[in-house]
Amino acid sequence: MKTRHFLAAAAAATLASAALAQAVGKPEDQIRWRQSLFHVNAWSMARIKANVEGAYNKEQVIEAANVLQALANSKMGALFQPNTQSGKGWKETRVKPEFFQPARQEEVGRIAGAYVREANEMARVAAVGDLNAIKAQFGKLGESCKSCHDKFRKDE
Amino acid sequence: MKTRHFLAAAAAATLASAALAQAVGKPEDQIRWRQSLFHVNAWSMARIKANVEGAYNKEQVIEAANVLQALANSKMGALFQPNTQSGKGWKETRVKPEFFQPARQEEVGRIAGAYVREANEMARVAAVGDLNAIKAQFGKLGESCKSCHDKFRKDE
Repeated sequence: MKTRHFLAAAAAATLASAALAQAVGKPEDQIRWRQSLFHVNAWSMARIKANVEGAYNKEQVIEAANVLQALANSKMGALFQPNTQSGKGWKETRVKPEFFQPARQEEVGRIAGAYVREANEMARVAAVGDLNAIKAQFGKLGESCKSCHDKFRKDE
Repeated sequence: MKTRHFLAAAAAATLASAALAQAVGKPEDQIRWRQSLFHVNAWSMARIKANVEGAYNKEQVIEAANVLQALANSKMGALFQPNTQSGKGWKETRVKPEFFQPARQEEVGRIAGAYVREANEMARVAAVGDLNAIKAQFGKLGESCKSCHDKFRKDE
């Protein structure tokens, strides 16, 4: 039961479990929207980086972390329908075909679940406002992003 | 004092008051990030539209509304620095030069402040889960988006 619970939780959080997710938009819309989403994440991460490396402003970190949290919890798996394995949004998608393979879904779900947890923790830590904790959690969140990029994103 | 208070509140919420906002990124990054942000908004609006016009799922509307709220409160004005009046992100920016004119900042701030309020109300109404209220607020939020597009966005 524990294993099944874990899988159910992972599936609910997954980036990939398309069958569970709300499909809206043509394949090219989905690819453009998900590329947009990851670039908004990049902006938000850049904002937090600027705060932990330069002058720290609590509100700015909260604003950026809240964006990361809302996007992590948005069920972005909806933007990875099976018919979007290749194609062009703003540019050609960089997702690897392995991301969609049934045999990899448990792994994708695990990585996605960890990412959602780290993003939620980032928002929690940002609201508290302890700079050392923010730095540490920013590092963990970045590692979580990277763990998916390393496995499931093609090099440019 | 009332007027000054209003202006301060509007400025804090504004899309445009660049001097107050945290600048991160080169002009082309800022333009790409803000284009990305508006496309994530478009995805979120499309999700809510699908729910109010089709099968209603409370969680999906909450997820989308939370994204809209976090982005509305992100101080996206940081992405409209004065050196981004023209230029290319994913594509050429469609912002009109009037958006940056000092004489228009009170108006921009008013529109932006109304937008933030409507997005916050969208998230509140989504959490309550009354479909008629969601429909009504979705319309108001769309009008708020349009009020800025009509004045400050070039046609394609």
